[in-house]
Amino acid sequence: MKPLPKSQHPARNDLYPSRKWGVAGQVRLRKDPVIYEGSNAPPSLELTQMDTYKKQGFIVLDDLFSEQEVHLFKSELDALKQSKSICKSGEVITEPDSNEVRSVFRIHENSRLFSKLSRDKRLSSIARYILGDKVYIHQSRANYKPGFRGKDFYWHSDFETWHVEDGMPRMRALSVSITLTENHHYNGPLMLIPKSHHHFIACDGETPKGHYLRSLKKQELGVPSDNHLRALVSRGGISAITSKPGSIVMFDCNVMHGSSSNISPYPRSNLFFVFNALSNKVEDPFCNLPPRPEYICTRRAISGI
Amino acid sequence: MKPLPKSQHPARNDLYPSRKWGVAGQVRLRKDPVIYEGSNAPPSLELTQMDTYKKQGFIVLDDLFSEQEVHLFKSELDALKQSKSICKSGEVITEPDSNEVRSVFRIHENSRLFSKLSRDKRLSSIARYILGDKVYIHQSRANYKPGFRGKDFYWHSDFETWHVEDGMPRMRALSVSITLTENHHYNGPLMLIPKSHHHFIACDGETPKGHYLRSLKKQELGVPSDNHLRALVSRGGISAITSKPGSIVMFDCNVMHGSSSNISPYPRSNLFFVFNALSNKVEDPFCNLPPRPEYICTRRAISGI
Repeated sequence: MKPLPKSQHPARNDLYPSRKWGVAGQVRLRKDPVIYEGSNAPPSLELTQMDTYKKQGFIVLDDLFSEQEVHLFKSELDALKQSKSICKSGEVITEPDSNEVRSVFRIHENSRLFSKLSRDKRLSSIARYILGDKVYIHQSRANYKPGFRGKDFYWHSDFETWHVEDGMPRMRALSVSITLTENHHYNGPLMLIPKSHHHFIACDGETPKGHYLRSLKKQELGVPSDNHLRALVSRGGISAITSKPGSIVMFDCNVMHGSSSNISPYPRSNLFFVFNALSNKVEDPFCNLPPRPEYICTRRAISGI
Repeated sequence: MKPLPKSQHPARNDLYPSRKWGVAGQVRLRKDPVIYEGSNAPPSLELTQMDTYKKQGFIVLDDLFSEQEVHLFKSELDALKQSKSICKSGEVITEPDSNEVRSVFRIHENSRLFSKLSRDKRLSSIARYILGDKVYIHQSRANYKPGFRGKDFYWHSDFETWHVEDGMPRMRALSVSITLTENHHYNGPLMLIPKSHHHFIACDGETPKGHYLRSLKKQELGVPSDNHLRALVSRGGISAITSKPGSIVMFDCNVMHGSSSNISPYPRSNLFFVFNALSNKVEDPFCNLPPRPEYICTRRAISGI
């Protein structure tokens, strides 16, 4: 008799069950540290900033990249969007109602410039410090969010999806968003719920096969209930990040976040890198489905930074 | 032979043609004053405020209504939403994707409290001064914009619709929005494009029969092109109105405005009264279709204020 795959093994320990029978709506206290503090603190970071990250779940660092660098990144993005081989690869996601490009995935592999950027010490030194380990890129992408018709991203915790659909075992990952255009309060900026990363909210529903094909256009599963959101916001409020190009937002994998639609003429464009601790590599998905493709979740091409 | 209806008469003068063959994209200079100054200036208004209104197309007046008054308005709104006779009348509009109430129309007739409010001197004295005439309520409604799933309203000039679909001849009307909930920058506040009221932008498309049934849920016709919007915003910017309950925004009928979606838990609720000059009563619609119902456009029950 063939042994059960790991994911279906009854003894497999799921610390953060979600989208499973009987767990919807359960709120669990986070079982993992927010800051692991394994390596030395990077000199660029002040202690108060780390304190903010720990308490709120995110920090904003202004002007981390120069105007010239931002200019280079933007040209590279335009080139990627027009690359026929990338468009054919399925790594380009369009808006739900139009053919406008919403995201391009796996930019740390598709572009030499972004590959170098993903290993840039300004980012990786902070990531290594917070996660207390060597890191690797779990996912990378460029978000275009065009003007006029940019749709909203509904509230979600990235970790909930990465855990259920990718099999990321623990909360030991973080996201870095590098803004390439000015983020005004009126062009659908990233909105985060401070302090929401301290709890894990189990979501309703069952993940269907190939769910990522829809969820990358519009997130409908893996979203918490109205009552849970109300409670989180009444405790932590909402922070809408307005910033200049070249700034970064670094946020914990379990912070609840989303963004409104963008009817302004100004696109909201950013680069997005997810750093995961090497000791926290993905396993079999917890939803008992085949893993999502490599361009959404690095499973094979893992290289430590 | 029966005479042609007024609207189809070739000699009928249409100062602001839109949604007609060959006019789409035309930009015309406004042919009407912004402030008519026929009556005495109300003492509550400063000269600089009138100057702002003239140049920008709108003013915000904070704390015009007391907390107690706002409380009364909100209770009345709850009652209206639950009134079976109003729900049956078709005067309640729901969100495009759900059954949540988006708007209730004709509140100046449906409710004694709101009828009184529509004649409140704090509003009508300013409206009479700006429009230089006695006024009447062209349209009134309550907007609920629920939290979590409140959709966006795309950019539009109200006058474009009132002219084409209702037959309002000139730009001699204004809207008053009374905020009943706090307007944050993140719960889909009213966004206006300053200075956009100085030009009339002819829109593309042809009005289909019964268009209002769709447009009140989601505006798709009567919206300007991307290029026109880009030009307007690059000249005037975008003003997102954040204010406390009990404040009012008063804006010219031709100001381009819209709002983003609201994924926050906080509903954005307001009362909305459109004052039109008595000398500017609606005629036959300029789109050669039967007039919209009385609850959207007052045609018969005109009473001067």
